[in-house]
This record gives sequence, C-alpha cells and structure tokens, in this order.
Amino acid sequence: QKYHNLHSSKSNSILSSTSLDNKPKAAMATLSSLRIQPIFCFIVLLLLPLPPCSADPDPLQDFCVADLKASLSVNGFPCKPASEVTSDDFFFDGLGKEGNTSNIFGATVTGGNVLAFPGLNTLGISMNRVDLAPGGINPPHSHPRSTESGVVIKGKLLVGFVTTGNVFYSKIITAGQMFVIPRGLVHFQQNVGEGKALTFTAFNSHLPGAVVLPLTLFASTPSIPNDVLTKAFQVEDDVINGIKSKFGS
Amino acid sequence: QKYHNLHSSKSNSILSSTSLDNKPKAAMATLSSLRIQPIFCFIVLLLLPLPPCSADPDPLQDFCVADLKASLSVNGFPCKPASEVTSDDFFFDGLGKEGNTSNIFGATVTGGNVLAFPGLNTLGISMNRVDLAPGGINPPHSHPRSTESGVVIKGKLLVGFVTTGNVFYSKIITAGQMFVIPRGLVHFQQNVGEGKALTFTAFNSHLPGAVVLPLTLFASTPSIPNDVLTKAFQVEDDVINGIKSKFGS
Amino acid sequence: QKYHNLHSSKSNSILSSTSLDNKPKAAMATLSSLRIQPIFCFIVLLLLPLPPCSADPDPLQDFCVADLKASLSVNGFPCKPASEVTSDDFFFDGLGKEGNTSNIFGATVTGGNVLAFPGLNTLGISMNRVDLAPGGINPPHSHPRSTESGVVIKGKLLVGFVTTGNVFYSKIITAGQMFVIPRGLVHFQQNVGEGKALTFTAFNSHLPGAVVLPLTLFASTPSIPNDVLTKAFQVEDDVINGIKSKFGS
Amino acid sequence: QKYHNLHSSKSNSILSSTSLDNKPKAAMATLSSLRIQPIFCFIVLLLLPLPPCSADPDPLQDFCVADLKASLSVNGFPCKPASEVTSDDFFFDGLGKEGNTSNIFGATVTGGNVLAFPGLNTLGISMNRVDLAPGGINPPHSHPRSTESGVVIKGKLLVGFVTTGNVFYSKIITAGQMFVIPRGLVHFQQNVGEGKALTFTAFNSHLPGAVVLPLTLFASTPSIPNDVLTKAFQVEDDVINGIKSKFGS
Amino acid sequence: QKYHNLHSSKSNSILSSTSLDNKPKAAMATLSSLRIQPIFCFIVLLLLPLPPCSADPDPLQDFCVADLKASLSVNGFPCKPASEVTSDDFFFDGLGKEGNTSNIFGATVTGGNVLAFPGLNTLGISMNRVDLAPGGINPPHSHPRSTESGVVIKGKLLVGFVTTGNVFYSKIITAGQMFVIPRGLVHFQQNVGEGKALTFTAFNSHLPGAVVLPLTLFASTPSIPNDVLTKAFQVEDDVINGIKSKFGS
Amino acid sequence: QKYHNLHSSKSNSILSSTSLDNKPKAAMATLSSLRIQPIFCFIVLLLLPLPPCSADPDPLQDFCVADLKASLSVNGFPCKPASEVTSDDFFFDGLGKEGNTSNIFGATVTGGNVLAFPGLNTLGISMNRVDLAPGGINPPHSHPRSTESGVVIKGKLLVGFVTTGNVFYSKIITAGQMFVIPRGLVHFQQNVGEGKALTFTAFNSHLPGAVVLPLTLFASTPSIPNDVLTKAFQVEDDVINGIKSKFGS
Repeated sequence: QKYHNLHSSKSNSILSSTSLDNKPKAAMATLSSLRIQPIFCFIVLLLLPLPPCSADPDPLQDFCVADLKASLSVNGFPCKPASEVTSDDFFFDGLGKEGNTSNIFGATVTGGNVLAFPGLNTLGISMNRVDLAPGGINPPHSHPRSTESGVVIKGKLLVGFVTTGNVFYSKIITAGQMFVIPRGLVHFQQNVGEGKALTFTAFNSHLPGAVVLPLTLFASTPSIPNDVLTKAFQVEDDVINGIKSKFGS
Repeated sequence: QKYHNLHSSKSNSILSSTSLDNKPKAAMATLSSLRIQPIFCFIVLLLLPLPPCSADPDPLQDFCVADLKASLSVNGFPCKPASEVTSDDFFFDGLGKEGNTSNIFGATVTGGNVLAFPGLNTLGISMNRVDLAPGGINPPHSHPRSTESGVVIKGKLLVGFVTTGNVFYSKIITAGQMFVIPRGLVHFQQNVGEGKALTFTAFNSHLPGAVVLPLTLFASTPSIPNDVLTKAFQVEDDVINGIKSKFGS
Repeated sequence: QKYHNLHSSKSNSILSSTSLDNKPKAAMATLSSLRIQPIFCFIVLLLLPLPPCSADPDPLQDFCVADLKASLSVNGFPCKPASEVTSDDFFFDGLGKEGNTSNIFGATVTGGNVLAFPGLNTLGISMNRVDLAPGGINPPHSHPRSTESGVVIKGKLLVGFVTTGNVFYSKIITAGQMFVIPRGLVHFQQNVGEGKALTFTAFNSHLPGAVVLPLTLFASTPSIPNDVLTKAFQVEDDVINGIKSKFGS
Repeated sequence: QKYHNLHSSKSNSILSSTSLDNKPKAAMATLSSLRIQPIFCFIVLLLLPLPPCSADPDPLQDFCVADLKASLSVNGFPCKPASEVTSDDFFFDGLGKEGNTSNIFGATVTGGNVLAFPGLNTLGISMNRVDLAPGGINPPHSHPRSTESGVVIKGKLLVGFVTTGNVFYSKIITAGQMFVIPRGLVHFQQNVGEGKALTFTAFNSHLPGAVVLPLTLFASTPSIPNDVLTKAFQVEDDVINGIKSKFGS
Repeated sequence: QKYHNLHSSKSNSILSSTSLDNKPKAAMATLSSLRIQPIFCFIVLLLLPLPPCSADPDPLQDFCVADLKASLSVNGFPCKPASEVTSDDFFFDGLGKEGNTSNIFGATVTGGNVLAFPGLNTLGISMNRVDLAPGGINPPHSHPRSTESGVVIKGKLLVGFVTTGNVFYSKIITAGQMFVIPRGLVHFQQNVGEGKALTFTAFNSHLPGAVVLPLTLFASTPSIPNDVLTKAFQVEDDVINGIKSKFGS
Repeated sequence: QKYHNLHSSKSNSILSSTSLDNKPKAAMATLSSLRIQPIFCFIVLLLLPLPPCSADPDPLQDFCVADLKASLSVNGFPCKPASEVTSDDFFFDGLGKEGNTSNIFGATVTGGNVLAFPGLNTLGISMNRVDLAPGGINPPHSHPRSTESGVVIKGKLLVGFVTTGNVFYSKIITAGQMFVIPRGLVHFQQNVGEGKALTFTAFNSHLPGAVVLPLTLFASTPSIPNDVLTKAFQVEDDVINGIKSKFGS
C-alpha cells in the first residue's frame, strides 16, 4: 500500500492539478519517514503551479502559446512571441505513457493542461489521463471552476459525484462510455474491475485545478487546526491526528 | 450541543445554500432518532434547490425578477411579468434576524440568494448572514463557482481557506475587517471569541451554492461507499461509520 | 467510394455536428440517385439541430438536464424537472461503437454533445468519437465558437489547421498524442496510417457545431449562386457544377 | 454645509470609486477657494484609478494578488509573485473606521475594492462601506458594469433606482434589510432617519467604479460645454453656471 | 422648438432604447398640456421594453430569432421555432428612414435592436441610426452595459464622454470618422455643423438600453424626491421644479 | 481582373482581418509573377496580426488603449499608460476613404479594429468599411468568434450566410437596410447593383478576424496537401492545382 510516484516531470504526472500558489520549502524539509516519502512526492506535484479554472475568458487572438517563464505574471500566462511559434506548439506527447499507480490511492493523474502543454493557453480546454490499478481511486475532489467529462478507454470504473443538495449520483461504466461531472462538485473514480483501468478526461478550462479533499483537509501547510476538523467531522482529536499522519502532516 | 433549527422558512435559514436537485423523501423518512432530528432539519434545508454558481451570465434586461414557481425550468429562473414587479421586489427582509445556532456546528447561515430574494435573478450577486455561537464553525465548504467576500460585524472569527496547492491561508479578524475566499476553494469560519459572532458575506452569483464537506462526504443520499472513503482518508470502516452516524446516515 | 452512413440514431452519428436550424424536406425529396443517397443520409445528419457554440454561458445550478422536447425554445435547452433526474442522465453509451466509414470521406464522427447526451446541457463541454478508414478524412471544417482538443487512441493521423493569417500548422501523430485546434479555425484530420484510426475529441461547448466546408460551400439548401463561387475560387462554372454534383446538389 | 474629507488614504475613502484614467494636475492647481477645497479633495479621490467593471472575466488561477505598481498595464492588474503572497493579502482592515461625513453630500463611501485590497484582483467581487449623516445622500450615480447589493447595518435609508424605462423603484429600509440595484442603473441612498446610517454594499466586480452624476455632468475636466447642458436640461446658462460653481468648476 | 415624434412604430423610433420594465398608464394619463405632449411621446417610446445590456451571454445555437410575444419571459427572449425562420428574419428595413428631429432635443434615435429586429436575439450586437438637426443633441446618457462605436455618415458632430474619474474626452468629427464610447460612461453627440447630421452606431449587445440622464433624473415615474435632487445638484427646489416641468413631470 | 491593393497602411486596408500569427518571410519571397503580385499584397495584409475574436472578456477599467508595441504579449494587448491617453485615442480617421477594388475579388475591406484603432482595446467592438465594385464580392469567409451586423450605405448587395445545418439564408438589400450574420458562420456580400456599393459592418469583438475560405484552403503557407483537398472536394489534382495557382500558391 506504499505510494511511489515515480513521475519526475511536472508536466507528466499530477493528481488532477497542482497550484500556482507556492512551495513551502520549510514544511517539506520536515517530511522524512519512509511512509511519508511517497506522499511527499505527491505533495510536491500538487504544489506545482496549477490553478483551478473553468469558463475561461475568451481568447483575443488565434492563439497565445503560454510563456511559462515570463517575468510578469498575469491572469493566465503571457504569450510566447508569435514568430517563435511552430506546429509543435499545438501538439503534446505527455498523455501516451501509462502512469505509475504504486501509491496510496492506486491511481495517477497525468495532466494535459497549460502547464504541460503551453499551446492550450487562453483556449479554454485541457485533458487528463487517469490510470487506476485494480481497486485504485482518484479520491474525492472538485475542480474549482471546471466541468469534467471523460471517456473510459479500458477497465471498469465506478464514477460518482455529490450535488450541493447532497444527492449522490453514480454508475459503473466500461470502455467507450462517457460521463460528466458538473462544475465544482465533489466526485471520484474507482477501478472496480479486475484489471487496470484508463480514462481520458476533458475540462472546459486550460488549467482545471483540483481540490483533492484528503489532502486539502488533512495535508495542508500549515495544518487546518484540529479544533475545526473535530467539530466539522464530529470526531475526536486522535482520529484527526491519525488521518493527518497518513498524509505526512 | 443539540441542533435545533427553528427557522421554518426556506428563504430565511440555510447553510450557505441548498440545492435545486431534489427531495429524496424516502431517505428522509428513515431519519428518526433525537440526535438525528436536528441534522434532519439541517439536511432538509440543504436539499432545497440551491445550485452552485458564480460568474453568472450577464443580464439581458434591467431586471428579471425570478418566478420561482414557473412551470418551465431554464438555466436560472424565468422572469415574473414586468407589469407585476413592484419596489418590494428589490428589497429583502430576511437577513435581519439572528440565526439559531443550537446545532452541532454552533452556526447558522441565512441565505439572501435568488431563492429567498427573487429580485436577484440574473443580477449575479447575493449575500448571506452567518451567525456563530462561541466556538461555532461554518464547517469546511466550497462554493462551486463563486468567490466569497465578507465583513465581520461582531465578534472574533478565524477565517481560513486552502489553495489547490494545499496551502492554508488564515487570519483572526474582528468587526469591520473584510476577507476574500477565491472561487471554489475550501474554507471555513470559526468563532474564536468569547461572545456571539456575526458576518455578512457576498457572492458574485445569484445562487452561490455550497458543497459542505462533512455532509457531502458523509451524509449524502445514497451514501458514498465506505470502500471509497476508507481508501481516500486511509482509515478503517469503523471510523467512516462513526462519522456517518453523527450525520444521521 | 460509396458513402453509406448506417447510423440510424441521430445521437450516435453526425459529422462533428448538425444544426438546430431546420429540416428542408422539399429539398431532401429531390435527392434520389444512388450516388446521392449516402450523402443524403449525411446531410440529414447535418440538418439535425446542432448549433455551434463555445464559451457557453455559465450554469446557474448544479445541472439542467436538457428537455429536448420542451415546447418552448430558449438559448440552449430548458431543463428536465430535477425530480425526474437519475444517475443515468449523467452517463452516455453512444461513443462505444465504431462508426461506419463507408462514405465518400472514409470517416464518421459520432457526437457526444447535448443532443445525444442531454445531461451536458449548460455544462459547457462535449466529446466526439472520430473513426477514420485508411486514407479517410474528417474534411476541412470549423467549430463556430469552440476550441477542440483530442487524443489519438489508435492509428496515425495528420492533424492540421490554418490560422486567420493563412499559416498552416500540422503534424502526424499517433496513439496517446494530444492536439489542440484554436477556436473557429479551419482544420482537418486525415488517417495517414495503414489501419483504422480512432480519436476522441473534446469541446468547450455542450454543442460544438460544425461548418463542414465542402457541404457549406457546395451542398447548401438552396445553393450558393455559382456567380459567387466562381469568383471566390477563380474557376469556371463547370468546376463548381462538378463539385456540387458530387454532393448531390 | 462645508465639505471636508479628511481621509488621507486613497484606499480608505472614495466615493464609490475613482478612476484609472488620469490626474489632470493643471486643472487641480486652479482649485483654491475654501468652498472649493473640499470638493477638490473629493475630486482627487475620484481621479484615482478606479475603473468601472462588472461581470469581470473569470480568474485563471487560485488567486492573482494585484501588483498595483507593476510597470506594465493590462486589463486588470498583473499579479504579485505567488511566492510573496501571505495570509495578510486576503484580509483588509479599511472598512472598520467610520467615514467623515462633513461634506456637501453628508456622506462618505469607503472602498474595499482592488485598489484598496489588492487580493481581490481577478476575483470579481468587492465591498464598500457607506456612512451617511442625518439627511446625507450618496448622490445619484451608476456603476458602469456592476450590480450592487447592500445590507443596512444602522439607521434608516431611502434607497431608490430608476430603470431605463424611467420607472423609479424605492423603499425606506432599516438595519438588517437588503437591497439590490440592477447593473448600470442610476441609484442613490439617503439617510432619512434621525441618527447616523451605515450600510455595507457588495459588487460583482473587483473595481465597481462610479459615475457620480453631479460630478460627471458639472465637474468634469474640462467642462462639458454649457450649450450641451442647457439643451439637455432645458435651462438657462446661469443655472448651469450656478451648479458648476458649487462643484468648483 | 416643439417636439413631435411622428414615428408610430416602436421599432423604428426610440431614443437609444426603451425598457422592458413597464407602462405606467395612470401616470401617462396626467400628461396633457401642449408643451408636454411631445415629451409624452418621447416618454412613451422610452417606456417600451428595451433593457440595457452588453457583453451578452454567448449564443448556444446558430440563431434564436426572438419570439417577442412568447408567454414566458426569460433572460433575453425565447426563440421562434426554427421551422418558421426565413431569410427575412436576418434583415431589417427600419434604419433607412430619416428620423423626425422636431423635438426638444432636435434629435431622434432609431433603434436596430432585438425589439425592432428580432433576428439579433442572442447574437450580442445591435445598431442604431441617429439623426440630428443643426444644434440638436443626443443628450447625455449611458448604456448600462454596452460599449458604443459609431461612424459619422453626414454632418459635423461633437462627440464626448466623461470617465469615472471625471475627465471629459471629446472631438468634433465628420463623415467617415469613427468614435468609441467605453461601456457605461456618460456621453452625448451634438450636431455642431450647419446642416443635418447622421451617424450609425453599433453596440456589443442585442439591446443596448439607455439611461437618458435628463429623463432618468427629472422625468421618472414616480419622481425622484426633490430633497435628493436639490442636495445632489446643490440647487433650490424651484430649479428642480423648473427642470421637471420641462419634461412634463 | 488584376488585383492591385494600393493601400499602404496596415490600418487602412485589410480583408476583414489579418492575423497575429506570423510573417513567413521565406514563403513570401517565392511570390514573384505579375499575376501573383496583387495577391501577394493581399496576403501580406492578411498576415498582419489580426486575430479572430468575439464575446471578448469584459474590460476591467474605463479604457485600456492598446500599446501595440509593448514588449510583452498577453491575451489582447497591454495598455498605453493612462497619463498619455488623449481625446484622439478614442477617434479614428481610417474609414473615410473609399477602398481600392482593383483586385481579383473586386472588393476591399478597410478595418476599424484594435490594430488600426488602438482605443478599442478591451472594449469588445469594432467596425469595418467594405467597398465593392459592380460584381465584386467579399468572398465566403467566417469570423471565428464574432457576430457581424452591417448597414448598407450605397448600392445593392446580395448578403448570404450558411448555417451549420447547411441552410443558405440570403437577401438582396439596398441603402439603409441592415443585416446580421450569426457568429462563426460562412457568409459573403456581393455587389449585384450597377454602381459601386458601400457598407459599414460592426463586430462584437475588438478584433473580429477572418477565415477567408479561398485563401485559407488554397493559399496557406505551407499548402494544405492536395490529398486532403481532392478528397474533401471530390475533384482531381489539376482542379486543386488550378485554384492554388490563381492565389499564387
């Protein structure tokens, strides 16, 4: 049940998204046990700049390939000079490789968003590859401002989401079947088949972002105070501490 | 620490939002214990039609007061005939009364959104009143597509949110101070003062909606399978069952 | 080189889109020759109501499953009553079956848009399945207001688009590779491999629509006058008549 | 009836908004009489960069705290580097202090918009504090592209707006009551009670802006020609000159 | 200097816009004097349903020709059934006729918006024809949520607008020259030439709407209280009463 | 039938739009024959940076006059410092001069978009002047994301467009008549009168862009492969080569 995320490239392996926010290095330095290491890698990925979005503003030119290293930061990304744009800017190789699912969730999300594929900048769309080992889950999460749709390519998935009225809609689907998750709602995918599962998902944002609930609630830096979590989930401190420890916090 | 929500009007008292989705009556019929009753009321409120939104589409006329009982359902609400609109349609009395905080969270959110105040329809804005008893929390939740800002009117609040990169930003603020929660991010307010606390919040949507995490994860109808939750939070079945039982599921 | 589109369900087989506009029945009645018959089917599909869109307005509730048979027509579709919505509304089976490519283009587009999958209504996203026989093309077309991205599942595709500055960007890609077509630009896919090819495409609209240029220019009802086309393409009448006849006009 | 606006900080005291446009220093130099001085201050505030907006474009990342001193000017503001963002960026102290109402209008608007609270940048929301002395008015004005809502905290206010069809809707409201002003319509608040009045207002834009009609029409730099104003309001030159002189023009 | 607006068709003659709001018939019945009659006509035009808008939500189909008489009112208008749409729906004859400028302003605005030209519905654009007699003005007004651009066809116009920072930008332009008025700002056109003037204006909304300041401030139904207006414009009651009487209030 | 476009200024003469994309100089160097020269000029114009757009994101300040020479490229254009803005920035002289129609299409489009008139930046609107010699056409084209409307000033025009359902709507109109072309659809104007024709068109984008089909399909750099075009239009290589040669490819 170890968690080893071997993907070294930020563009190739993230759990639905990482974030523009920051890289709290001090916090990371405290992560050292073996059990923690995998989640450490996991967190590193999630700390990369991958903001949530959806219903992106419309483009104002044919394209604006992102200049991810521009000195100035704006809403979205500045554009690479058009004279330097080539056909390669509109194609991306990163979704072809099966993700490593040897981690606590038994799943890996490989992102095809603007951070990995700068040609998507301003175009309001992105796609992810989700690999799941048998029993693996893409844990409950939400995309702050993006609808998600997906097509199962291989395997058998339980896909479900919960509305703001707390109704849980779900179904088990297989290859060729499509699903949709309304914007901002909590959802998950679980591999309920016997073999590996693969699905490609699409988002109406160039950077869908992800609020991965176990990590948001129990692995933030700094931590959400136990007093808030015990009251929210009506449990004792030790339960909260137990969960936090699983995620290295 | 009982939860008695005495507000009888849907428009006056909801936890950040309710939902358009549905009213699973059968499920409700099974809720009967005393401990459950308060949360039952709570859930009823949350099951009311209150969709998540933000960055609402622009209005196409001066106003379009919602006809909440129209036979046809569209994106948003149809408009009340303009000839029947009066000054009263643009004013709302529901935020003046202190909410009852005798519930498990020690807090009540009174909604001033399109469901309570139909004049807001298509205008892209709404406001809530949040009352918190000492120690009370507006538990971790997100508004699927709305930014939130707020001004503290009374008391001392810890206000915090977590980014998609799992960074937790927070501060303790008092009367006259303002905060902002970026769209779709998980956040909470906790009364950390000695007396009651009151804050008015604003949303850039006529129906902000709310994904209240304890309820979304542990009190949906039907339930999210334990297999998903145990794997997501790395706990045993009994922990999940314990939490679910607190919320009457 | 016959064109037989055997798909009987509007929801399962369309060339990128059809249209809300109309069903000129008289015009169709004149289509009778064998050669014309397949393109007739093709046109029928294209005449189905599939409007172009993108950057759809934001949803104003969790979901609004389309009521495709509502008596009233609005921008988008009215919603099915929430009380009648079930889990099945958020899942779609239509993309699992290989499309019939026995037509003049050697390709079939199977649409997973709001017309086929009403649960997508207001959610701003859709997906298509594109099957191409060896040498087949998804002919030059544009989506009036939608960006397109796609992942190749099988085979070898030449994917290209032309900017408003008349620059042609293209690349040959294979399984696992992703491409993006900026909004509104003319593009095509061609199977340049030896076997069948398959790609799933995604759009940031619940109804991407398609302006399929050979059909738009040479197979409209009524026809664009030859005087316009000869001057536009700098050819003689017989060339225009020849092309029109290929498409049954 | 003197007008003394003692607020020295641009972020703490403005009349609904100021503007990005410019700082016509020469014009200001001519303002010197005592009567003019207060309005001079008033104008200075209004000349500060506070653009009108509403239905702001969606954010493309979790946050983009405004860098108000960036060398480059874009639609909205460039972002402060994420690594320099702290919790303090999401909280604002400026609305806690009662505004000075010793001016010709007997009212002061303290802005909680992106200029005062840079953390609001791209988040599409802002709030103002409006203090009114007995009899004081927030004079007829419009927010070019923002809806306004508000909650009365103290006192008794007459709140009214006029539609494009010239219908005047209004009501006298007190503490706890909420109002809404549709986008772009002319509206005002007047303190009709015996004591001070206070209201917090919210806008669906990070910079609502304000077209304050007395100032727009009679105190612009340079002046709107009398020939236009006499014809528009069907009065003689001396009436126009009289009004202009009250505002120091 | 009488005001005779002879246009009998609502679609052919309005001052920049009328409104969806209402038709206060009782109020109109009190308008009887000769001097009032012209402005009465004027007001009638302005009371017609012409809401302000701009940055309209995107269309979700090729077209949605407005059904102005639909029983249900929504944001914008429901669509005429596609099967009843003909070429004529996309063309409009109403801008060809010179407007009657025999009114107090010496100008007439003929609207080419969705109310006159239903084919514009959902398409986010409209155009007006503005005729001005020598010396005539299109009085200071704003379009609540629409930018305006225009081309002078004939004559010599002073075109000016005031920013939210109270800076007045203006220029005298002649045939073939183009101008732009940023969204929501107060602007006017005055014929400063010796002959008639004509300009065609365009709006990025299917219903630009207009807040015509003299009428908004002094001719609303019911009236804005004198107490507000005297304080706002720093004049005595008799000045306000004088202006109101010119507009028949 | 020569094509001489004598307009030397990029801002004064373009065919509906040019593009931000690029200036493939090598390709241009190969254009040398007399017949090619005019189209060469034509292409040069089209290669200028004029991206397609529509439904532009809303402005976030009163104005943001484009700084077309800014070092940084963003979605749209950075703003000229407000302190350098003058009245002249909001007026444009370029549409007053009749365009030269001595080219293969017998028509010239003079652009009044953000590239020619930087004051339009972020304001979501632009206008073009279209001059057509007798028999001249503005060839079939689409604006990737902009609706178009227009008013005929002089002459007799056949205006038509084709829906995504391949229905052709058209009408012959004369001076004073208005038309609308839904977003993204293929359309054209043809002068079917005996004299010159002139129309002013408006777009709900500051840079409408244009996909001019003859050039997109047959004059791109590099060329679309004949294999694609022969299959798309069901013609032989020589037909494709013939058309390409007319456009200098």
